[in-house]
Amino acid sequence: MKVLIVFAHPEPQSLSAALCQVAVRELEAQGHEVRVSDLYAMKWKCNVDRDDFPSLSSELPLRVVSVSKAGFTSHSLTEDVWAEQEKLLWADTVILQFPLWWFTMPAILKGWVDRVFSCGFAYGVGEHSDKRWGDRYGEGVLSGKRAMLIVTVGGWADHYSSRGINGPIEDILFPIQHGILFYPGLDVLPPFVAYRTDKVSSGMFEPMAEQLRERMRSIQTTEPIPYRRQNYGDYLIPSMILRDDIDTGAATGFAVHQSTAKLA
Amino acid sequence: MKVLIVFAHPEPQSLSAALCQVAVRELEAQGHEVRVSDLYAMKWKCNVDRDDFPSLSSELPLRVVSVSKAGFTSHSLTEDVWAEQEKLLWADTVILQFPLWWFTMPAILKGWVDRVFSCGFAYGVGEHSDKRWGDRYGEGVLSGKRAMLIVTVGGWADHYSSRGINGPIEDILFPIQHGILFYPGLDVLPPFVAYRTDKVSSGMFEPMAEQLRERMRSIQTTEPIPYRRQNYGDYLIPSMILRDDIDTGAATGFAVHQSTAKLA
Repeated sequence: MKVLIVFAHPEPQSLSAALCQVAVRELEAQGHEVRVSDLYAMKWKCNVDRDDFPSLSSELPLRVVSVSKAGFTSHSLTEDVWAEQEKLLWADTVILQFPLWWFTMPAILKGWVDRVFSCGFAYGVGEHSDKRWGDRYGEGVLSGKRAMLIVTVGGWADHYSSRGINGPIEDILFPIQHGILFYPGLDVLPPFVAYRTDKVSSGMFEPMAEQLRERMRSIQTTEPIPYRRQNYGDYLIPSMILRDDIDTGAATGFAVHQSTAKLA
Repeated sequence: MKVLIVFAHPEPQSLSAALCQVAVRELEAQGHEVRVSDLYAMKWKCNVDRDDFPSLSSELPLRVVSVSKAGFTSHSLTEDVWAEQEKLLWADTVILQFPLWWFTMPAILKGWVDRVFSCGFAYGVGEHSDKRWGDRYGEGVLSGKRAMLIVTVGGWADHYSSRGINGPIEDILFPIQHGILFYPGLDVLPPFVAYRTDKVSSGMFEPMAEQLRERMRSIQTTEPIPYRRQNYGDYLIPSMILRDDIDTGAATGFAVHQSTAKLA
């Protein structure tokens, strides 16, 4: 298997970096090929701006969606973006690893998504009709591949539980897992989340590392989160509202978009 | 009133920029003082890295939380970060305006949060005991001030409705409104969200602008979203789990953290 890890932490001596190395070593030990996009080490350019579209005339306004699509279609996006798209096409499995900062990914990783997931590549593709609404949510350029998050969290697991004050971790990660990864077609495995990572002592590291190794060993066989695919009858088109006659039990909010919605 | 608008769009001729100007003019017409942090125009530095902490020895690893706190406490953070913190302290109301890119804010605005909301300023403050768990979620350095999002969205409103495929807009914005704004104490007003903004014709702009003007006229009187405050009895300490005996009706997930949870 070919695995791309996109890694976003500024400190090579951090717990996050140590866990990234654990993942790489275990995947390689299993015979997989691994590439790492270490965004800080690469000095990844963070912001979508005019420099991303060298073929855009300086007299024209920057309309991000259309310029992004034109750049992708004409192969005139910048080299760094193109290289990341190539890696995504190369990979069978994509892992995003990051510390949870303010309940989402650090800016540098968001900037990777904003720039690499260009129009025509990750969105704005496919037929729009009364039968289909584009190739997205289960279809798209990355369909057939797997994805997974590895997230380090400073806070306590309880604070991210179903009634914990920060909100449930699965809901906090939904805009990433469903909105960024499932959107262009990736099958999303349950995340690996390590809590209280500001306080990890040496004795706590090895059990955490072993849990991560176990996840890496089972990465080809773990069942993905059963998000509902868009164009297979569950949603009305073009409103993209889940059909009334689909019973989601007690589930509300993000949870209704899983086909085995929690029927608690 | 003093209003800070933090604006994140790369194109001065965009709909977002036009709406920003509408907000500024209406607020000024009401007699308010307005400052705008136009992050692209400022060439805002996006990423938390060693350059943010000039007093950190190059031999020491970058431990973000502790280094951020030490830098804030000793007034040795960088000038650009300090200037934004000053603006936040100056303002009575803070508006974040951005296009929704991949279901959250653009990288440049996330980088403003990551860098400006330093430890000791926006988090990691206050007593931790069996009675209080820090000054956060309704208390903190920005308490007594108001906040609001102005969000432009390419997709359709239906797609962001309660059973729409993208997830409900209030849940998508929860990690920002609750996790970033309410966390350091801001009272968060309901957001202004404009949909289908890639397709706005000139005839559609004026009604949209007028809705925004109306929100700006009522900004001092609009009721904030009734998020539950952390240290006032609703949550167990230190687990920060909402007490079992608090009935949230049919609400689950993020919605239980509003004191008038939807009792649908």
